[in-house]
Amino acid sequence: MTQISHSRRLRRTPFSQGVESFDIKAYTVYNHMLLPTVFRSIQEDYRHLKEAVQVWDVSCERQIELRGPDAGRLMQYLTPRDLRLMQPGQCYYVPIVDETGGMLNDPVAVKLADDRWWISIADSDLLYWVKGLAYGLRLDVLVDEPDVSPLAVQGPQAEDLMAEVFGDAVRDIRFFRFGHFEFQGRSLVVARSGYSKQGGFEIYVEGADIGMPLWNALIEAGKSMDVHAGCPNLIERIEGGLLSYGNDMTDDNTPHECGLGKFCNTQAAIGCVGRDALLRVAKEGPVQQIRPISIDGDAVPICGDFWPVLAGGKKVGRVSSAAWSPDFETNVAIGMVRMTHWDPGTELKVGTPSGLRSAVVQSRFWI
Amino acid sequence: MTQISHSRRLRRTPFSQGVESFDIKAYTVYNHMLLPTVFRSIQEDYRHLKEAVQVWDVSCERQIELRGPDAGRLMQYLTPRDLRLMQPGQCYYVPIVDETGGMLNDPVAVKLADDRWWISIADSDLLYWVKGLAYGLRLDVLVDEPDVSPLAVQGPQAEDLMAEVFGDAVRDIRFFRFGHFEFQGRSLVVARSGYSKQGGFEIYVEGADIGMPLWNALIEAGKSMDVHAGCPNLIERIEGGLLSYGNDMTDDNTPHECGLGKFCNTQAAIGCVGRDALLRVAKEGPVQQIRPISIDGDAVPICGDFWPVLAGGKKVGRVSSAAWSPDFETNVAIGMVRMTHWDPGTELKVGTPSGLRSAVVQSRFWI
Repeated sequence: MTQISHSRRLRRTPFSQGVESFDIKAYTVYNHMLLPTVFRSIQEDYRHLKEAVQVWDVSCERQIELRGPDAGRLMQYLTPRDLRLMQPGQCYYVPIVDETGGMLNDPVAVKLADDRWWISIADSDLLYWVKGLAYGLRLDVLVDEPDVSPLAVQGPQAEDLMAEVFGDAVRDIRFFRFGHFEFQGRSLVVARSGYSKQGGFEIYVEGADIGMPLWNALIEAGKSMDVHAGCPNLIERIEGGLLSYGNDMTDDNTPHECGLGKFCNTQAAIGCVGRDALLRVAKEGPVQQIRPISIDGDAVPICGDFWPVLAGGKKVGRVSSAAWSPDFETNVAIGMVRMTHWDPGTELKVGTPSGLRSAVVQSRFWI
Repeated sequence: MTQISHSRRLRRTPFSQGVESFDIKAYTVYNHMLLPTVFRSIQEDYRHLKEAVQVWDVSCERQIELRGPDAGRLMQYLTPRDLRLMQPGQCYYVPIVDETGGMLNDPVAVKLADDRWWISIADSDLLYWVKGLAYGLRLDVLVDEPDVSPLAVQGPQAEDLMAEVFGDAVRDIRFFRFGHFEFQGRSLVVARSGYSKQGGFEIYVEGADIGMPLWNALIEAGKSMDVHAGCPNLIERIEGGLLSYGNDMTDDNTPHECGLGKFCNTQAAIGCVGRDALLRVAKEGPVQQIRPISIDGDAVPICGDFWPVLAGGKKVGRVSSAAWSPDFETNVAIGMVRMTHWDPGTELKVGTPSGLRSAVVQSRFWI
């Protein structure tokens, strides 16, 4: 393994001090910011996430704030998902595409008010696309990156831990809804969401100065629950079929290829960028699509580049994420497979750095 | 030091195999791509760069291609630098700003033809800004990221090494000009440029398949010149005053604050985004500006976050890059200092992780 070189360009977060008070072993870089990836080990972190509760520094989910009379109009330009019925207090997962229907990001939109939105982004400078559109289309809206750093609390005991710090009212937050909760006199947006299938919350920490006090309060309150610093877990997110922009999809892919067609209401989302291209895709269907794939043999190495998926010696797709699953006792993987070979049960070969492996298309992710 | 977690999202390059055949010790991430930062050690790499010749994998300088009748018009929208006299065959360093004059990137524009440009970018997804503008302004231009990965050859013996591989005609390329040169039947753009003050070239390697053959040819041809894999060197680039976007400047800063006012012809570059804001800045001058700063004492630690610059206990700026310079026997640093304290010779304090240090504003960088 290689070291990561620290520099100001790879931004630290309001919680870095807390993260580094634990046994952080590895970082990745996400939106020009440090994102922890391993504490004790990927396997230990995985087990602990599924059994206890973790506090995750996901500051790298940077926010784009849209403010002003055209905020809602711009938001609807950005995504093919129909936002007309969305209410303040709701979060929507929204594919963002360019004019050809290629994915630019897959963020969560947070509707604070009719004229104020946050977009909680995946790993690309979506801010530049949004600013470029707002400028080019001369919309009456302010677009910037506010001082908001999400902190996630994930795991089966997440609700109990959150209730200790924010009170029992957090238990009433429904999935992909949010409320405003007080911490040390500050009102923070708290949503039931997060990048795991273990349940939990994301706290939109507004103001870097409140970061460490909140981190410390959660760690202190969680002692009896075996709380630990954590991070998105490679194994758990593949098992759960949580896609990662830049890994499993890029701007080469349409939402339909990524299995996100259900979030594209191209008949309704009139005026959205990419509508014409996606109408065509929606009509004809994609010719390749994301599939869960099990890979035979012992634990595969890190997937640092696309692995070719082969059938009869011909390339029919690629694997973009893979890991050994202790719970399912197989290598779980996310791949993009051509329609000729995407039916569940189809037997394939995957070219991994440790040789050609047998693999099988699954009917569903491991949840 | 912490490890870097590899994943497909941190893209490998056409030269990664070559890089890893050397003793690569550390990576950073730049434009979602792996950029080597240390081979033998920062100090050894520094000495070798100044005395011999290095081959740098700078694939992370991704290209944005503008193609079509409005390519030139879009390029001029993007930058306050006057491009009217720029000819095909020339490279220009072009600050890119948003409508408020805030820096979005500081790339090199490569004019291939009147209707075809490359923008060789620093670390932000400038592609999104350019695409957003082109869409919003309904310009007749194609914008995408082509399969072009720059490979730099830097150091005092760079010209001799390049002549071995491309022929003596490379010696005639003038600074910030480029020509087309053959390698294995492929025509490649070769420019005299690069992110060091030691002289050298950047080869715009079009087509990933030719990457390793070219890498190997350069390493083979350079054996008698003590060629080694290298990378932008922290010490050398600070000595030379080479700014790093994301480190020394962000979208909070105007070009004028970064000492790039000479690249802003706001009277001439009519229609460029940010012109109104920059006209005002050009008239009144910035209130803070980039300065070379020497920091007393032994070697400072890595600058992973802004260090406050103080005078009389008051914050008057920040240091964003710093390193011990063996040649100048002082800590060299790049800082942003308020006008009240930016005169050469001004004595300041810098808050480093190893305590408060005395520091002095310099009249020029160490070149």
